[in-house]
Amino acid sequence: MSKYWSKLVTRLEPYVPGEQPQDQQYIKLNTNENPYPPSPKVLAALKESIDGSLRLYPDPNSSQLKQAIAEYYKVAIEEVFVANGSDEVLAVTFQAFFTNDKPLLFPDISYSFYEVYCKLYDIDEKRVPLDADLSINLDHYSIENGGVIFPNPNAPTGKALPLSAIKKYLEENNKTVVVVDEAYVDFGAESVIPLTKIYPNLLSIQTFSKSRSLAGSRIGYAIGNKSLIEALERVKNSYNSYTLDKLALIAGTVSIKDTDYFQKTVNTIIATREETITQLQALNFSIIPSCTNFVFAQHNSIDAETLYMQLKASGILVRYFKRDRIDNYLRITIGTDNEMKTFVQRLNELIP
Amino acid sequence: MSKYWSKLVTRLEPYVPGEQPQDQQYIKLNTNENPYPPSPKVLAALKESIDGSLRLYPDPNSSQLKQAIAEYYKVAIEEVFVANGSDEVLAVTFQAFFTNDKPLLFPDISYSFYEVYCKLYDIDEKRVPLDADLSINLDHYSIENGGVIFPNPNAPTGKALPLSAIKKYLEENNKTVVVVDEAYVDFGAESVIPLTKIYPNLLSIQTFSKSRSLAGSRIGYAIGNKSLIEALERVKNSYNSYTLDKLALIAGTVSIKDTDYFQKTVNTIIATREETITQLQALNFSIIPSCTNFVFAQHNSIDAETLYMQLKASGILVRYFKRDRIDNYLRITIGTDNEMKTFVQRLNELIP
Repeated sequence: MSKYWSKLVTRLEPYVPGEQPQDQQYIKLNTNENPYPPSPKVLAALKESIDGSLRLYPDPNSSQLKQAIAEYYKVAIEEVFVANGSDEVLAVTFQAFFTNDKPLLFPDISYSFYEVYCKLYDIDEKRVPLDADLSINLDHYSIENGGVIFPNPNAPTGKALPLSAIKKYLEENNKTVVVVDEAYVDFGAESVIPLTKIYPNLLSIQTFSKSRSLAGSRIGYAIGNKSLIEALERVKNSYNSYTLDKLALIAGTVSIKDTDYFQKTVNTIIATREETITQLQALNFSIIPSCTNFVFAQHNSIDAETLYMQLKASGILVRYFKRDRIDNYLRITIGTDNEMKTFVQRLNELIP
Repeated sequence: MSKYWSKLVTRLEPYVPGEQPQDQQYIKLNTNENPYPPSPKVLAALKESIDGSLRLYPDPNSSQLKQAIAEYYKVAIEEVFVANGSDEVLAVTFQAFFTNDKPLLFPDISYSFYEVYCKLYDIDEKRVPLDADLSINLDHYSIENGGVIFPNPNAPTGKALPLSAIKKYLEENNKTVVVVDEAYVDFGAESVIPLTKIYPNLLSIQTFSKSRSLAGSRIGYAIGNKSLIEALERVKNSYNSYTLDKLALIAGTVSIKDTDYFQKTVNTIIATREETITQLQALNFSIIPSCTNFVFAQHNSIDAETLYMQLKASGILVRYFKRDRIDNYLRITIGTDNEMKTFVQRLNELIP
């Protein structure tokens, strides 16, 4: 606290970075990174692009990347927004649509950053409880609001809503912007992108960090009606015209075009996930059906915090949330087959 | 305009990107990029770093880059903030220190983004006129304010204040944060960084885009008292924990360590600038003494807009601002010796 801080700063919490211990080699199943490298075509294109042209500013409009995303989803380039990771896309979205006089609605168990953006931008929030089975129930979102955001599939539960439920909700709610945060959608859920042609208040937000193995490049995007995209552009261009650097633009453009590699790695992760679920069930875990690259699991007799600590001591990091309703679950990122084999073996040793 | 936009969006202007014509090869003397490539050590380190680890998130604290910057300037790592270009550093700075009830002071002729940030973050502003000779006069900044920001050297004039003038101002003004935007400081002005040890309300903002030839990598930084830096960290971590991607972090870290290459290219640009000034004076231009990698010049008989158009038609882009008090000046980025030779030849042909 300092006399030089704005009021805004005083209401923000200091950030506690996620667990990245440096003291030994862990099997990292805690941050939902993809266990496979980016497409070899991405790595080759990046290597070729390292030259003196880094002295020049990147394209402020990110046209090539937007065009590649537009082609992939069969939308217009004016329906695509890109920025520095889906976190930045979310931050811009909150400023563009949610800074108004009514509360933003989002699930009580969800992506932890939503409440942080609300604090930063001084947005009223109302957290809507998940159902007892940890499902999002959109019937509870038909109350007065200044906007709606939820992840689909939700995190950290891994549960997805069917497109029909979202469509039904949109039919009845056209007054405010509805954002579906689809960071994990490629691992088994249905994207709302086709619905953006019908509903001008619908925005899909996605990322290259999970299904495209590019967490290190920080590329996120949003797809929606061009008037929503124009609002995002105005906000972004009012603080940083060039949020994606030259190399990130190249990585994203080549990545989205390599559909074969994308499909292959996503399918492998889904297969590993299903195999892992079977093995965890055999070890007396209850698992929420997952449409993501992680599983949310609780053991029928051993408490999650104990297991989390024991796994960590034995060199495996998973994610544990000490938070009401989910404090007996572990969130386990799906790694390679070998990593998951080691993980299940370790559990076999730990569980009597 | 759409019913879904927040009030915030409706007060923002759509962005008009700078002139980047695609129809022919121009000599680009219009965006103050460095004519020399980044250090060969940077390019080599980047090539070596292109591998599967791009699937992992970058270090959210940017520790290696901060450490390298701290060592270069002999400050503590807690006195260094880094983000996605100095534009993002500025945006975070405006939120952290200037969102209060009194007006922010900045020069009436200055970096055009200051007024854009004020609109975005709803900050009152008061533009303080430059003196008749286009100098910043800090005597005019001792009025009630919610903060002060000015570039040193100023842009687009290229004029620098001596450190003694800034020190005198800081002695008398310790109530609000004073930000010195030092994007061009390496080309001949004195940095305030040593003064940040004395004045807890002083912040220096710098960039890798100009003197370090890395505009394509988007790396900016701020140096100041650790309590100011903590405020910047809180704001940044409330909207995007990872604004610098893996490759940008590597480029920045290697670049700041290569002091020989940096000094060599900066000295070359300064020498080219002085030679260019002599030749422009011989062609009847009046030049403001420049401490930057550009010169701000007016011809004694031909108007600037005409010259700008003629140069463009002949394949050379410079910058022209159709703005009160400076609408008879051209801002000319210093390129290579060869580029400046062509530029002067072209002027010789155009000027009767």
